[in-house]
Amino acid sequence: MAYALLGSFASVDDIAKTPSDDKETAVVKLANRIQDEGYDVLCLPLTTDQWKKRWTETCISSLGDEEHRDRDREQRLADEKRAEDWRSQPAFQLDEVTMTRLDEAQGVVVVASEWLELDAADDWVRHDAAIALQQELAYAAYLGIQSVILPAPRSREHVASYARIVNTCLKSVPYVNLAVRLPIYDPAKLDEGIPASPFVLGRSPRMPSMSMPGTPTLLVSDDSRHAHNRPGPERELNTTWEMWDLIRTICDYNTRLSLALDLALALPSTLGVLNRWSAEPVRHIFLPASTFIANAKGYPVLSKTTQSFLRASMTHQPTIILSGTTDRVHERGGGAAYVQYVRHLERTSPVVRATETEGTVEHFAQGYQDYLQAPLQPLMDNLQSATYETFERDPVKYHQYEEAIFCAVSDLQDVENLIICVAGAGRGPLVARALNALQRAKKDAKIYAVEKNPNAYVTLQRRKAADWGDKVTLVYGDMRALEVPEQADILVSELLGSFGDNELSPECLDGAVRFLKPTGISIPCSYTAHLAPLSSAKLYNEARSGATASGSPAGLETPYVVMLQAVNILSGDGPGVSGACGPRIQECWSFEHPRKDALLDERGLPFSNSHNVRSARLKFHIPHAGVMHGLAGYFEAVLYGTIGLSIHPERKDHVSKDMLSWFPLFFPFREPLYLPSNSELHVTIWRLTNTRQVWYEWHAEAFLAVQAIAAPGWEKPRSSSLGLLSATPSLQDLSMPSSPLIDAVDMPFGSPSDTAMPATPVREPSMARDSGHGVHRARGEPLTVIKIGQTNLHNPGGRSSWIGLE
Amino acid sequence: MAYALLGSFASVDDIAKTPSDDKETAVVKLANRIQDEGYDVLCLPLTTDQWKKRWTETCISSLGDEEHRDRDREQRLADEKRAEDWRSQPAFQLDEVTMTRLDEAQGVVVVASEWLELDAADDWVRHDAAIALQQELAYAAYLGIQSVILPAPRSREHVASYARIVNTCLKSVPYVNLAVRLPIYDPAKLDEGIPASPFVLGRSPRMPSMSMPGTPTLLVSDDSRHAHNRPGPERELNTTWEMWDLIRTICDYNTRLSLALDLALALPSTLGVLNRWSAEPVRHIFLPASTFIANAKGYPVLSKTTQSFLRASMTHQPTIILSGTTDRVHERGGGAAYVQYVRHLERTSPVVRATETEGTVEHFAQGYQDYLQAPLQPLMDNLQSATYETFERDPVKYHQYEEAIFCAVSDLQDVENLIICVAGAGRGPLVARALNALQRAKKDAKIYAVEKNPNAYVTLQRRKAADWGDKVTLVYGDMRALEVPEQADILVSELLGSFGDNELSPECLDGAVRFLKPTGISIPCSYTAHLAPLSSAKLYNEARSGATASGSPAGLETPYVVMLQAVNILSGDGPGVSGACGPRIQECWSFEHPRKDALLDERGLPFSNSHNVRSARLKFHIPHAGVMHGLAGYFEAVLYGTIGLSIHPERKDHVSKDMLSWFPLFFPFREPLYLPSNSELHVTIWRLTNTRQVWYEWHAEAFLAVQAIAAPGWEKPRSSSLGLLSATPSLQDLSMPSSPLIDAVDMPFGSPSDTAMPATPVREPSMARDSGHGVHRARGEPLTVIKIGQTNLHNPGGRSSWIGLE
Repeated sequence: MAYALLGSFASVDDIAKTPSDDKETAVVKLANRIQDEGYDVLCLPLTTDQWKKRWTETCISSLGDEEHRDRDREQRLADEKRAEDWRSQPAFQLDEVTMTRLDEAQGVVVVASEWLELDAADDWVRHDAAIALQQELAYAAYLGIQSVILPAPRSREHVASYARIVNTCLKSVPYVNLAVRLPIYDPAKLDEGIPASPFVLGRSPRMPSMSMPGTPTLLVSDDSRHAHNRPGPERELNTTWEMWDLIRTICDYNTRLSLALDLALALPSTLGVLNRWSAEPVRHIFLPASTFIANAKGYPVLSKTTQSFLRASMTHQPTIILSGTTDRVHERGGGAAYVQYVRHLERTSPVVRATETEGTVEHFAQGYQDYLQAPLQPLMDNLQSATYETFERDPVKYHQYEEAIFCAVSDLQDVENLIICVAGAGRGPLVARALNALQRAKKDAKIYAVEKNPNAYVTLQRRKAADWGDKVTLVYGDMRALEVPEQADILVSELLGSFGDNELSPECLDGAVRFLKPTGISIPCSYTAHLAPLSSAKLYNEARSGATASGSPAGLETPYVVMLQAVNILSGDGPGVSGACGPRIQECWSFEHPRKDALLDERGLPFSNSHNVRSARLKFHIPHAGVMHGLAGYFEAVLYGTIGLSIHPERKDHVSKDMLSWFPLFFPFREPLYLPSNSELHVTIWRLTNTRQVWYEWHAEAFLAVQAIAAPGWEKPRSSSLGLLSATPSLQDLSMPSSPLIDAVDMPFGSPSDTAMPATPVREPSMARDSGHGVHRARGEPLTVIKIGQTNLHNPGGRSSWIGLE
Repeated sequence: MAYALLGSFASVDDIAKTPSDDKETAVVKLANRIQDEGYDVLCLPLTTDQWKKRWTETCISSLGDEEHRDRDREQRLADEKRAEDWRSQPAFQLDEVTMTRLDEAQGVVVVASEWLELDAADDWVRHDAAIALQQELAYAAYLGIQSVILPAPRSREHVASYARIVNTCLKSVPYVNLAVRLPIYDPAKLDEGIPASPFVLGRSPRMPSMSMPGTPTLLVSDDSRHAHNRPGPERELNTTWEMWDLIRTICDYNTRLSLALDLALALPSTLGVLNRWSAEPVRHIFLPASTFIANAKGYPVLSKTTQSFLRASMTHQPTIILSGTTDRVHERGGGAAYVQYVRHLERTSPVVRATETEGTVEHFAQGYQDYLQAPLQPLMDNLQSATYETFERDPVKYHQYEEAIFCAVSDLQDVENLIICVAGAGRGPLVARALNALQRAKKDAKIYAVEKNPNAYVTLQRRKAADWGDKVTLVYGDMRALEVPEQADILVSELLGSFGDNELSPECLDGAVRFLKPTGISIPCSYTAHLAPLSSAKLYNEARSGATASGSPAGLETPYVVMLQAVNILSGDGPGVSGACGPRIQECWSFEHPRKDALLDERGLPFSNSHNVRSARLKFHIPHAGVMHGLAGYFEAVLYGTIGLSIHPERKDHVSKDMLSWFPLFFPFREPLYLPSNSELHVTIWRLTNTRQVWYEWHAEAFLAVQAIAAPGWEKPRSSSLGLLSATPSLQDLSMPSSPLIDAVDMPFGSPSDTAMPATPVREPSMARDSGHGVHRARGEPLTVIKIGQTNLHNPGGRSSWIGLE
């Protein structure tokens, strides 16, 4: 099974060098040739140098700069007239495009004119570049081309204008998919002698991250070359991603907008920073031959980081576009070696391997990645037999249950007339496992099987008649209402949802615990809900479009069950700047069974459901900038002793490897929340209930540590703002704030945390950066954690989704 | 005209001390008595101490703490049963409420039980407080009470839970207006011996900002008392406002949710920080007698800050609730003195004075404050006579025009056969003013009056016949299409909108300039658009609800004309942390007439409208935290020489005082953008055009300066994170970054900005605050400006609003 498509890039020169004949044009011949070489897709520029020449002469020369102002008015009028004629009716000449026929265009990926500066500082250049891009896209659409790769954004300062133009194009050209070309690379490596022109794809002598001469913009790569003594590449990588984030935000997450990542330059060695791309719509990856290094034998291979990144990128099912493979960059292997190597990386990608291995979740979940499903409501809805069948296929879950029952039964060796009650027997898998466990423990027991689904109850009767006989007593009814003849030693249930309690296991077991002796054992005996903040453009778009499997109420206010793939968990381990953050994935709350110290009415039922209300306020450290689209929910359950079930990403392989029954829960947010590097996210989530239903509400706030800065110019005359502030030491009483509050209230870092430590010395204030502007900074001031953003409250009052108790 | 209502607070004791008789209850008697004393409204608590006693016994004692766990199970069961009974069916006993009859409740403002801790750290306390609040609100609704003041939030940490409960109440109690009680005060003054219990209103011995014993929360006022050596009260004031902002955000800006500001404590002396409340829905102001100070004669007066704040608050038309006025806090004047003093402040409020003075904008605009109107489209729509009439009433605008024409005519003394063309004559006011100006200058001229509105053209004919005769030649038609017999020396037009160019003056004058001699004068000769970011809960809600005067397309994607009142301009003068910010209100772009160096076709018209495209990227310094809801747009025009028109808030009084014709433009944002103190806002706005229409698009990003911080725990094991980072000096080449880029790219502050300054010394690293958590900070690292948030792109492609060219 192929995960990636392989593309081959042909330059204008390649096309020129390929002779056409009466039957086939050069482009068609190239397309046929590369297919013979093992490629799937031809990638080529849409326009020729003739077009660049005409556009430059028409649009740049009509700008009226010094040189041209000297010409006589008539010449300028003619120039302007020509530009205005083009603006009002943009059209190509035959020699300005690489393709003219439908058969040439079929299946190709084209690159729009790379030299178009959609983010030029000059309004006129931008204006005319926008018209040119629209002209190119309209022509591509005319030829039925599906995918166009856009010029790379160049200027962080003017990227909003780039984005606005792309958005306009998405609206005006209805069917074509657009990909933003984006270089990701390690800026630290730029100083180390990278080839001056690695972007050989489009014959452009300039790097996309460089500007046209005279553009008064500090550009990403310019800056990164001038920077010394910086902490690391984090900031520049952020800038690249920030530009993408701004573009897709301005384009309102249009599903026809994707990424063409350019790996022409060396990647950073910290893969953590690269994880963010897993949550973005990467449709193309540029991989020039020059990116490859030679192995000992002279064959082309990739650096370890690039290998890992490409392997991980297989989840995107990208088109990997090779270029320059026939330029003999590497001494051995020829053009075929690149193709073979990339196919090798594909085969050895962890996600590809897992998917192709039977018994893994990845294999089981094929086609369900990032597919939103409404959570089951087995209490309110009676499940269908096929649903039971799917879940009964999970070998791991039932193995764990059998082990738990076996251990519990073994621990109860001395109990005579052992009674086991299966609460919610469904079609009987736990009954069968309980019988297995008893047989293995060489123990007899009476088994009660309680089930409220009248249809499943028929299946239970059939199994009793065929297999179980007198060992099993069937009881039909709701475990919260019916009476059982005798109390059990072991109460077995499988009422757990992806978030633990979200299929109302707590409420059901509140009723079923009446069947258990005071000293009895509940399997499971506890379960815990876990959360982590995530970024995923895909899930955000899916939730927004309301596309769910079971046609449940749509929207961004309801949790979904989903096999997470195109997702980046934004949190990291570590205490955060406030010191109050927990780990990457955090516990929300737990439920225990039987409830300790529960107060019950005469029937053994709780007075109300108030005791099942929960809330949690979690604090996450966010190491790298990202956009939060929602929360990932997981559960972990203790069945008995050390036997458990877990879908916690970091623990599931230790607890219940290859268990298939639960995908994570996804709590979406209505509006994406931007989180800078080193920020903190405080999530509040509530489990709420009334007499008829249970639901969750969730909310988040973002915080950042800043140094106390004298507000420049604020309530001070500008002329007198050249002075320096004297810094005062922070002498706060630290016996008090061991408090959990790390919000907008002053948070003294750098203060002595106990008397054994020296007090912070009075520091010399630093210089203001720009004396002309008078920026104050008092270096000795403590860091302060301040609020920077928040979300709305989600699902208030269970408005958009609730779990029915009836 | 009364701006404020005056309320009088009656405590439970006051009610008890008032004897009731057969006809009138104590509450009714109190209501009658305070009306005689000059008050409008009675304010009283809804519940008595009996209710507090029962709730505390029921809910707190059932919590099962150490003490109660010792009791026998039977007693605990009884307690729990009582609590659960109440939870399932909450109801009052007669002696637990202050009112029972409709006549008592009529028109009163009630205070819900202040001791309810909706933001308690304990889940059970919060749960039961929520049930109690719902019970109280349901009872208030039963009595037909319109306004309930909620307990003050106490905990920044748990304020989200407070907010969630209030939101639930807003949904479950449909008609009652809820007000969040919020103390605003100067925390610095707390150390200076403020009376221990200033909140005498509700007989609560505790300040609302203090916690119940045992609540493990660092509270606002607790913190502020322990703080020493802090830069100022900014942070604590932010915390108070932050809590409000979080509450109303979680309540989704519900229009039934308002503020009851509590002025029991001394206000900060910096009014700048208090401006934010002008943009919030302040419906009540608590003003206890203890807040008053005694003047030289012993009469009660308020501090200067509180005076100013109260005067400014008259825009809210608040209910000012006095309390303790009969407690003889001040030796002179008695209870009546307080009432008289507040009424005096009302009369001397600048906004009240302006509104009551004829000829001011405030007087003219009564009833139009914060009222959204769709901008006029006089090019596309033919205005009605009444609309002309309204605008012709502006004495200042026409005075300025007459002066400009007078000066221009005077400067053209030597020109023979002077010709004046009025482009867009409407019903003729500019023609009349031109005639005046000529008379004053003792000069003759031929006047052409061009008008495309066929209906107004009839009025022009009548005026020509009646008043003007041969001096004026009428020309009927669109100035962009028709031909005129001869070219003018002066072209006069009044095509300006609130944002200058937004009624298409540039496009119309491109056509009309053909009527002007090459050396001719255009009045106006230029105009400039200005912008500033604003906060306004009112405008956000109005725009969101789509309520506009003229029934234009609704929503948050279209600019509105609006007389701004409940608004706070968020920007401040000063360079900001990056040093790149402009002033509080910034220029976007300008248009000049006649266009210099314009290239025109043979008819004298431009080839296309490309030259009227504009864009601006503005950088605003945000001194105080706030939520941005939109942009305020203004214009300033030069008519001729030094004569102009301006609605720029800081300049209009110098340029064209009391001009009535233009209210500002309001560009809303779809989602509020949170801006912390000392942040920067970068706004991009575009003026765009196609052949049929003109429109604006707008977008914003937020930035903040942070110190480079080693990501705690990131790619470092937690156990080894106790060490300290050594700080490296920043030795960046500063010949380069005089650039406008202050985005996510490294921004070295504290670096030597020229060689005359000493290099930043290597600093000793500071101590980590909490050695148990291992937070790293390298004090010597430069400040970095990073992105923290963004808005969507608004009105892309002119989708939601455009200005028609046809």
